[in-house]
Amino acid sequence: MTALSPELSPTSRSTLGRHAERARTDRTDLYDVLDAGLVCHLGFVADGAPVVLPTAYGRDGDVLYLHGSSGARYLLGDEMPVCVTVTHVDGLVHARAVFSFSMNYRSAVVHGTARRITDADEQLRALRSIVEHLTPGSWDHARGPTRRELAATSVLALDLGEASVKIRSGPPADDDADVEADAAWAGVVPIRTVFGEPEPAPDLATARPVPAHVAERAGPSAVPAG
Amino acid sequence: MTALSPELSPTSRSTLGRHAERARTDRTDLYDVLDAGLVCHLGFVADGAPVVLPTAYGRDGDVLYLHGSSGARYLLGDEMPVCVTVTHVDGLVHARAVFSFSMNYRSAVVHGTARRITDADEQLRALRSIVEHLTPGSWDHARGPTRRELAATSVLALDLGEASVKIRSGPPADDDADVEADAAWAGVVPIRTVFGEPEPAPDLATARPVPAHVAERAGPSAVPAG
Repeated sequence: MTALSPELSPTSRSTLGRHAERARTDRTDLYDVLDAGLVCHLGFVADGAPVVLPTAYGRDGDVLYLHGSSGARYLLGDEMPVCVTVTHVDGLVHARAVFSFSMNYRSAVVHGTARRITDADEQLRALRSIVEHLTPGSWDHARGPTRRELAATSVLALDLGEASVKIRSGPPADDDADVEADAAWAGVVPIRTVFGEPEPAPDLATARPVPAHVAERAGPSAVPAG
Repeated sequence: MTALSPELSPTSRSTLGRHAERARTDRTDLYDVLDAGLVCHLGFVADGAPVVLPTAYGRDGDVLYLHGSSGARYLLGDEMPVCVTVTHVDGLVHARAVFSFSMNYRSAVVHGTARRITDADEQLRALRSIVEHLTPGSWDHARGPTRRELAATSVLALDLGEASVKIRSGPPADDDADVEADAAWAGVVPIRTVFGEPEPAPDLATARPVPAHVAERAGPSAVPAG
């Protein structure tokens, strides 16, 4: 792929029309939002109509790898225009006026053309990035894929060339008149995503402790927002 | 709108190709997934390419109302084909083989034609459903919208006519050989969404207690999954 600018590209569809003050233009902001997510929403066009499917993903530098099982049955050729969106809801913003209610959130919207991975080495790298993104430490712990399993797995790649990042944080923004009128409570209810205690599979052949790469993720102290 | 079947319609695009055993066909399952969500992902086609944007929404019977600020600038006519997806990630499924890693999740994918709401009464009802969905009890607590605020708000409506619901839950599903080999830990790391302690706006004119409809949502005991 071609070298990418450290700044996100300002094409018309990746430039924000509404709430432009919420835009982030650094590539590191894009990485942060993508890396903190668990699932992305993959959008594509099938028979002229939009389709949006939740999909597992991973990032390797400036390439996003998507588990293609769901979208791939629509991918007739080797390439497909897609839009991939990752969103974290960080809080509910209660304002004095219903018109000013909002959400605190971080979102990344990536536009581009997804290609189906055919190279065996890249496919292995892609699957590793997806598994490690979702469940860090698992690739080396679990049994690796056989050739037959690899053949049964479809992975899409999407260059992080064109993207927009939008972040809202902080308290509500009411009009001065509503702040002075003081007729309602206002504030933010924060939202967090929490990993619970690991639940061992009931058919584990032998009792074994939860491995460190799984155990250390549990509990409210190890929380990625979103 | 026309009367809807209690069963979700089995069109080709709403019938699951992969993992058909995860499909739910009752309309109540659709309601449950939609009602438990905070944000949906609205997909549409702009200049021939897919766009997916996170959007607030509410449900009123068999109509989904979408806060149209983001998508609406692409809505040139009064109607637009859309796909609206709501996803909850409930757990990370660690298997013995990386090929069998999965997620526990609930998702709803709605296909249809969104229409821009122009009727003032319906717009008010739609905004109420969006605000009450996101922050129950807030519509009556906060100041209602003025005519000018209503005019500045765009809302889309989407009939819940064609949709698919997919749910995965429970432990990993490894091959027998991998279960017997017993070479790796397997199990589920559950994921929950938690509302934190409300953070009052710093510019509240007078100290006032957090109202009950906000306070009762906080804490890990009042957790909607997803």
